[in-house]
Amino acid sequence: MKAAIFVEPGRIVLDEKPVPDVGANDALIRITTTTICGTDVHILKGEYPVAKGLTIGHEPVGVIEKLGRNVLGYHEGERVIAGAICPSGYSNACLDGLSSQDGQSAAHGLKPLGGWRFGNTIDGTQAEYVLVPDAMTNLAPIPDSLTDEQVLMCPDIMSTGFAGAESGNIQIGDTVAIFAQGPIGLCATAGAKLRGATTIITVDSLPARMKISKRFGADEVIDFNSVDPVEEIMRITKGRGVDVAIEALGLQSTFESCLKILKPGGTLSSLGVYSEDLTIPLESFHAGLGDHKIVTSLCPGGKERMRRLMNTIESERIDFGPLVTHRYGLDQIEEAYDLFANQRDGVLKIAITP
Amino acid sequence: MKAAIFVEPGRIVLDEKPVPDVGANDALIRITTTTICGTDVHILKGEYPVAKGLTIGHEPVGVIEKLGRNVLGYHEGERVIAGAICPSGYSNACLDGLSSQDGQSAAHGLKPLGGWRFGNTIDGTQAEYVLVPDAMTNLAPIPDSLTDEQVLMCPDIMSTGFAGAESGNIQIGDTVAIFAQGPIGLCATAGAKLRGATTIITVDSLPARMKISKRFGADEVIDFNSVDPVEEIMRITKGRGVDVAIEALGLQSTFESCLKILKPGGTLSSLGVYSEDLTIPLESFHAGLGDHKIVTSLCPGGKERMRRLMNTIESERIDFGPLVTHRYGLDQIEEAYDLFANQRDGVLKIAITP
Amino acid sequence: MKAAIFVEPGRIVLDEKPVPDVGANDALIRITTTTICGTDVHILKGEYPVAKGLTIGHEPVGVIEKLGRNVLGYHEGERVIAGAICPSGYSNACLDGLSSQDGQSAAHGLKPLGGWRFGNTIDGTQAEYVLVPDAMTNLAPIPDSLTDEQVLMCPDIMSTGFAGAESGNIQIGDTVAIFAQGPIGLCATAGAKLRGATTIITVDSLPARMKISKRFGADEVIDFNSVDPVEEIMRITKGRGVDVAIEALGLQSTFESCLKILKPGGTLSSLGVYSEDLTIPLESFHAGLGDHKIVTSLCPGGKERMRRLMNTIESERIDFGPLVTHRYGLDQIEEAYDLFANQRDGVLKIAITP
Amino acid sequence: MKAAIFVEPGRIVLDEKPVPDVGANDALIRITTTTICGTDVHILKGEYPVAKGLTIGHEPVGVIEKLGRNVLGYHEGERVIAGAICPSGYSNACLDGLSSQDGQSAAHGLKPLGGWRFGNTIDGTQAEYVLVPDAMTNLAPIPDSLTDEQVLMCPDIMSTGFAGAESGNIQIGDTVAIFAQGPIGLCATAGAKLRGATTIITVDSLPARMKISKRFGADEVIDFNSVDPVEEIMRITKGRGVDVAIEALGLQSTFESCLKILKPGGTLSSLGVYSEDLTIPLESFHAGLGDHKIVTSLCPGGKERMRRLMNTIESERIDFGPLVTHRYGLDQIEEAYDLFANQRDGVLKIAITP
Repeated sequence: MKAAIFVEPGRIVLDEKPVPDVGANDALIRITTTTICGTDVHILKGEYPVAKGLTIGHEPVGVIEKLGRNVLGYHEGERVIAGAICPSGYSNACLDGLSSQDGQSAAHGLKPLGGWRFGNTIDGTQAEYVLVPDAMTNLAPIPDSLTDEQVLMCPDIMSTGFAGAESGNIQIGDTVAIFAQGPIGLCATAGAKLRGATTIITVDSLPARMKISKRFGADEVIDFNSVDPVEEIMRITKGRGVDVAIEALGLQSTFESCLKILKPGGTLSSLGVYSEDLTIPLESFHAGLGDHKIVTSLCPGGKERMRRLMNTIESERIDFGPLVTHRYGLDQIEEAYDLFANQRDGVLKIAITP
Repeated sequence: MKAAIFVEPGRIVLDEKPVPDVGANDALIRITTTTICGTDVHILKGEYPVAKGLTIGHEPVGVIEKLGRNVLGYHEGERVIAGAICPSGYSNACLDGLSSQDGQSAAHGLKPLGGWRFGNTIDGTQAEYVLVPDAMTNLAPIPDSLTDEQVLMCPDIMSTGFAGAESGNIQIGDTVAIFAQGPIGLCATAGAKLRGATTIITVDSLPARMKISKRFGADEVIDFNSVDPVEEIMRITKGRGVDVAIEALGLQSTFESCLKILKPGGTLSSLGVYSEDLTIPLESFHAGLGDHKIVTSLCPGGKERMRRLMNTIESERIDFGPLVTHRYGLDQIEEAYDLFANQRDGVLKIAITP
Repeated sequence: MKAAIFVEPGRIVLDEKPVPDVGANDALIRITTTTICGTDVHILKGEYPVAKGLTIGHEPVGVIEKLGRNVLGYHEGERVIAGAICPSGYSNACLDGLSSQDGQSAAHGLKPLGGWRFGNTIDGTQAEYVLVPDAMTNLAPIPDSLTDEQVLMCPDIMSTGFAGAESGNIQIGDTVAIFAQGPIGLCATAGAKLRGATTIITVDSLPARMKISKRFGADEVIDFNSVDPVEEIMRITKGRGVDVAIEALGLQSTFESCLKILKPGGTLSSLGVYSEDLTIPLESFHAGLGDHKIVTSLCPGGKERMRRLMNTIESERIDFGPLVTHRYGLDQIEEAYDLFANQRDGVLKIAITP
Repeated sequence: MKAAIFVEPGRIVLDEKPVPDVGANDALIRITTTTICGTDVHILKGEYPVAKGLTIGHEPVGVIEKLGRNVLGYHEGERVIAGAICPSGYSNACLDGLSSQDGQSAAHGLKPLGGWRFGNTIDGTQAEYVLVPDAMTNLAPIPDSLTDEQVLMCPDIMSTGFAGAESGNIQIGDTVAIFAQGPIGLCATAGAKLRGATTIITVDSLPARMKISKRFGADEVIDFNSVDPVEEIMRITKGRGVDVAIEALGLQSTFESCLKILKPGGTLSSLGVYSEDLTIPLESFHAGLGDHKIVTSLCPGGKERMRRLMNTIESERIDFGPLVTHRYGLDQIEEAYDLFANQRDGVLKIAITP
């Protein structure tokens, strides 16, 4: 089968691999649609290390090709998705409500991010087939009424973006700001609206993203090239600050802006993947006495999460159609990486179809 | 009346002041016992700015001398305490569950720490009398069975230390580490035990504090002069890390150690008052993907909080007697400051009696 | 001034009363719009006892006529609302997060429903003027952009209905059923949608209400005259049951239906005012082993709640316009009671303007 | 092997059965200690229906005899326990945080109590061997320092009793009443203390139980034969009522007493197994307007829960030694049932050793 493989920093190439064997608790999925994530670009650039030869990608939409002999409750030919994060279901972390952080190693105790396996510790989804581990925990049937593209955001960015709103514990009537309106930030905006935030302020500078931001729930969209977002948010909130600030970029500057606009007692919900140490400025942090919270979220996975997210789309609470800006065959995936890594042509998400 | 007054950095002196007038919603309390807090030393050193001439101190135990004309439900001569933080009860912050951050100013929106008034924005408790604002929100009658010294920790360090355990959302069976076993850290240890933590690991180096730490609930006490606390905690937890780490000192080094020992998905509950920007190391923070939480707590106040804390003492869940290491009259308060600021003679808390 | 007064069971009449004196912490409000609530009809019928001569009504929209001498932060002439429930802000219940249950009496300990004062323990709002107690806790300025009618639902039914969704702890992706789509049930539907429920099933039989129900967020509306709602809900949910069932009528039959459709581990959020003992059928309750929750909510009040609700309307998350079906002057209030008590002419809510 | 088998109502007998085959995800445990639960007596009496021929018992302490071929991370000969409730780990209920209610059937949707399998839907633990399903989710290694009897309460009554305190969301400073001090009620008392309740009032009449109740954390123990518990609790709480009332018997009368002593806004945490419809009296329920909560809990299971409970014992937070009042060999189990079912000789729990 064909698969997009990490060769070395700077090179992800399409190559041939054998179709994997199916273990007792696994399922083999024939991929019908997948996509490329910002994290994959970190891998491409060598910023996030993975083994050479690994198949990349963690957003599977497909059809069950073969079920392991212990896997019950599904049938071959069934359309399914699985989350980017594949919890085992049986680890102590899972049973303690932390399924994304599912992982253990004799040497180092709990391994963080242990639930993220596709394209990280096992072969990923940018291929003709992918093996889903702990299939009964992870396979979620797709409702007939939904197309592949409609559910393509569920495995990662929708789950992650919504988690930003959920971990921030947004309440009805909250004022929420979201920094950066890339795919994750846009999903966080949709999530904030779904949780009942009634003043949603978003920050970006690209007109196409700002337009979708409005459509996804923003009451006010700030162009950071025109005004200072911190000042503008304090003006809009009449000096009150926001209840929850969501960081969706991964930079010190946006992290810091979030702290500056937080009301005393507010929550910074961080979704960004950072590449440097972060600084918490003393003043914005009120010397540690401001009752502030800083919370982080790794994309929740598992079949129940996927069921809920697909239900959100089926009930027309949100339409993620506008996020798919480009479509490529798997054969053209190197070209797709080039477009996506360089953020050309207004790209948001690319549907890849083997 | 006599009052300990901030004159300038380096000088808090005992001086004469008029007994204050009692407003409609106030109560005048004759102080029978009060104490000196680490924050007062920050004020003394000029590290935390207050107005010149202000009476210092925020931990009142006393007797009602006079009630404002709107204050109902109390009688003159009643023994009472009030929290270090005096919420109004009627601010939007209070009504939104954030009573410590109760404060508003036309110019700057919500003022952080607004609930802290004694010895900060109004005259404090190191005096013969103190005026308690919003008396019906703040005055808590002392049960007859409890002495002044038994309730002396309620207004600040007990409330703060317990808040560290509560904000960390400690659950039955949790493993918790607490860095520093000064008065606040010791109260956090007691709070962690009361919340059901079943492995409590504390870190200090002073033998007297380490001994009280055991008595207050520590299962393991680490002397940071003998071993590396991070390595030792990872050893004790078999590489699993802790569910909750409580920072009770206010330094970058302890803040960072807390992050290092946190399990993926764990919570850093910060109680320290910091005097510099903080750094979050990328690795300990798992690039923002570890589902970590960082939460901060300002001492909860109000009469219901005080009632609950006094009930904890009355029910003999904890005996804070060992924390009062020294006793001085108000006349000797300058001497008491000298002892406390220089942490001489194994001092933990000093009872000051006018 | 004119006021609608409870004379005896069966008689609420418009009569003359003196304009009340303004105490130090009170505010006198000139009512510009108010309404009649189902609870008022209980009072009218003698089912809920109040003192003879009491002015009825608990939903004030008006203008500040006079402020008590301790009331700061407002100005005469300001447009304001107050919640149906007027918490003091300073009671132990308030400080413990239970502001609706704010009340104490020497004889009986905590008095339930103590926060409900208008038209219950003090004169109410169906009058030319009403005295708002603890004004700084309760007065919420109306944004200029909103009309009286737009905010008329905030004091009671919107706050109550939303509380049904909030107390049920609805999460994104939940399936929720709401029994009865009167004013409270319709607001619960809107609240469920705002909290992120993605399958909302409502039950009623009046076509006008069923139509508004759809508009307010229902995905499926069941006419209980056509089908058995329990069977229909189990069919729609494929036998899974609902995560949260909201009872918004106050009858044994709807309470029981809610239990029957609850998934194991689900929550029954009860808003109804019952007039008889309730029975929990053993089977639906799984003998007490189903991890079920039954929660009840009294309308949350206080100025911060009102601010949040008005923000919800200002941000166009919901338009309660369709709920005002009739308009009367205060002079015609007896006629309005007659219409409302008999639920004639498709009445939902009546705007009363003095 | 020998096993205690349900033959018909009134008869549980010791008989021979084949040692079961070990499936891929199972583990075969050689029982070293087990016990009899009140639920087993319900089965004996025919009040709770199970299949004829089923082995009874759901509290396993033992040694791994054989592991299924997919079961990793354990070794044969290892000492382990498993919870009375064996969640799969992979069901939607598990992944939604409701692992006790793990069960699904095509015909009836979610099956309540689905997580309870031992001695209910599969062969139980009163035998020489038991098969543990989903072994990686359920097997918890016993620390070397703990004896069989020390961990014998973990699988059921400790987990259940603690859940009563946890579901009641007990906070530091809460006043809690617990009705009935049988094994479950005593564990609830211990759990309430561990969660920080500072006034714990328990109700029973047997002197031996009342004595252990004090030892497990009760501040006040009421003998319901001497005084009316409702009146006495209202007297002790000065008319305030309790924050949380725990029902640990399963009768209408105790359920009703719990409601009567609840403060407005309080929580009734129900642990009892009821055998009749329950009535909620209108007055105690404040017509549904008292912000009351009624919550129920089925014993939480899974290896992480077991790990936490064993850690509680290892850390000497509680010693359940006093609960084992009798010891029998498996050969004598019919005699043990006779003693236990008739509650003779002050029996609390019986250790059964094959």
